[in-house]
Amino acid sequence: MSANEDKITAWFASQSKAPEELFPIGIGDDMAQVTLAEGASVLITTDMLLDGVHFDLGRASLQQVGYKAMAASLSDCAAMATVPVAAVVSVALGKGFSSEELKKLHAGITRAADIYHCHLIGGDITSWKGDEPLVINVSMLSRPGACEPVKRSGAKAGDVICVTGTLGGSLEGKHLEFVPRVNEAIQIATMVKINAMIDISDGLSTDLNRICSQSGVGALIMQNAIPISDAAKQKDDPVSAAMNDGEDFELLFTLAPAEYEKLVEQWKLPLAITKIGTIDETNKIKMMRPDSQVEELKPGGYDHL
Amino acid sequence: MSANEDKITAWFASQSKAPEELFPIGIGDDMAQVTLAEGASVLITTDMLLDGVHFDLGRASLQQVGYKAMAASLSDCAAMATVPVAAVVSVALGKGFSSEELKKLHAGITRAADIYHCHLIGGDITSWKGDEPLVINVSMLSRPGACEPVKRSGAKAGDVICVTGTLGGSLEGKHLEFVPRVNEAIQIATMVKINAMIDISDGLSTDLNRICSQSGVGALIMQNAIPISDAAKQKDDPVSAAMNDGEDFELLFTLAPAEYEKLVEQWKLPLAITKIGTIDETNKIKMMRPDSQVEELKPGGYDHL
Repeated sequence: MSANEDKITAWFASQSKAPEELFPIGIGDDMAQVTLAEGASVLITTDMLLDGVHFDLGRASLQQVGYKAMAASLSDCAAMATVPVAAVVSVALGKGFSSEELKKLHAGITRAADIYHCHLIGGDITSWKGDEPLVINVSMLSRPGACEPVKRSGAKAGDVICVTGTLGGSLEGKHLEFVPRVNEAIQIATMVKINAMIDISDGLSTDLNRICSQSGVGALIMQNAIPISDAAKQKDDPVSAAMNDGEDFELLFTLAPAEYEKLVEQWKLPLAITKIGTIDETNKIKMMRPDSQVEELKPGGYDHL
Repeated sequence: MSANEDKITAWFASQSKAPEELFPIGIGDDMAQVTLAEGASVLITTDMLLDGVHFDLGRASLQQVGYKAMAASLSDCAAMATVPVAAVVSVALGKGFSSEELKKLHAGITRAADIYHCHLIGGDITSWKGDEPLVINVSMLSRPGACEPVKRSGAKAGDVICVTGTLGGSLEGKHLEFVPRVNEAIQIATMVKINAMIDISDGLSTDLNRICSQSGVGALIMQNAIPISDAAKQKDDPVSAAMNDGEDFELLFTLAPAEYEKLVEQWKLPLAITKIGTIDETNKIKMMRPDSQVEELKPGGYDHL
């Protein structure tokens, strides 16, 4: 494909005629928001996972696939600090797929859903004519929590940039069994004012670029500060792994320095929150190396196209 | 697969823990319903279409595929007499798929959506590593219209059974360019009280069976009364085509005789509404042939598994 994912998404967004008063958040964020009668609103996200791309049935169990599909959408709910409500799941099954196998997939779906009191309320089961690969699509509804949904586009110059957990090497195993940061996101957004947030699905370099470009700001990251996972430390270039591997499903967010101080003081959950840099007024993302040299950082994460 | 689609759907429904006060309509209807704060509610449906199964890119244009995917979900909104609001669309593209091709798909999606003021508000674009077939999944939100959403399970003994339009032979062309009966469904449900409704996606015999089994009733159909499409009339067995071909995307609904009389009197739209039979207290579906012989009617439509 000639255009990359973010370019084509921007083109789709430019074609939208959805009126902002009814659809306050549209194409290009982690979820879209729909305002209903009586002032209530609901958010929706959709994610398609493919055998051979997002998982490999030679190495992952059907139970893990069901779990991962749900957890990826739950992570989108987390990215906006919203509360998961319900999901519908579509599957395309190879010809020989048995009802017992379908029940294993279902067990994985409900294992993830039950943790967050998110209900499976519908779906669509269809079959390939031959042995084409398994496809699973999850569309999930959430509702705003104690605050308005946190968008990607609200980062401000001077904001502290934080990540949860550790980054990189997810393909070594974490990508099948990660814990979506639903509860932590709601907790953070209840304690302090978050200006922008995203879940790191395609790599820190790519997802930070999304926050910056959608907010019209730049950023300076301290390489030394990046929390590198044990799996990434085993790789040839641990920093590059932490920046670009993707599927970390950790939270990346920005907030004013005073709010950051408050968060650090009040944060009691076991998940680490690490300050990795600062938002600035440039339109570039830079990384300061341990030798204090500053280099420009290009998105090097996963592009779906 | 050892179980058929309706059996496995019933099993999924039996596993659901979704509380009825928050989810008045769950697994097994055309859409699921979610009650939000302030008493507002939203409905959701999801449909996955596969190249080689639901369309054939050798014969259908990408524009037609986009249109059909949206129209299938719009038809689910019609089946419950609800008002389409917004949709999210996921696609899995073969490796060589160009952004120009994606724009053609988008043109078809918005052609269907625009007719019903339904907005495309998000999606997910992903790619196969090779030339696996195109997959498109639409999840659509709707809201209740002037009445409560019409379920499959409300049919009562004595009800008149009606269908819109003509049936059969959809694969000859209609399945790519059908008109979802959104406006007609809302109009009918505003004028009279409908007890049960479904859209005929898998064939009259199969979809009538769904209404009857979910309502705990039986039915008697008059073969002579079935409105057979011109395309079905060209086939070897036009009646069987009208009963079983599927993808008619017409409405099948039941209502009390007095309501039916009122509907016939007041109905001014060009779409034909035909009485084809009566709901009874048996647990069987029967068809009276032109020679007045009555035979039991088994579901003979499309099973997705």
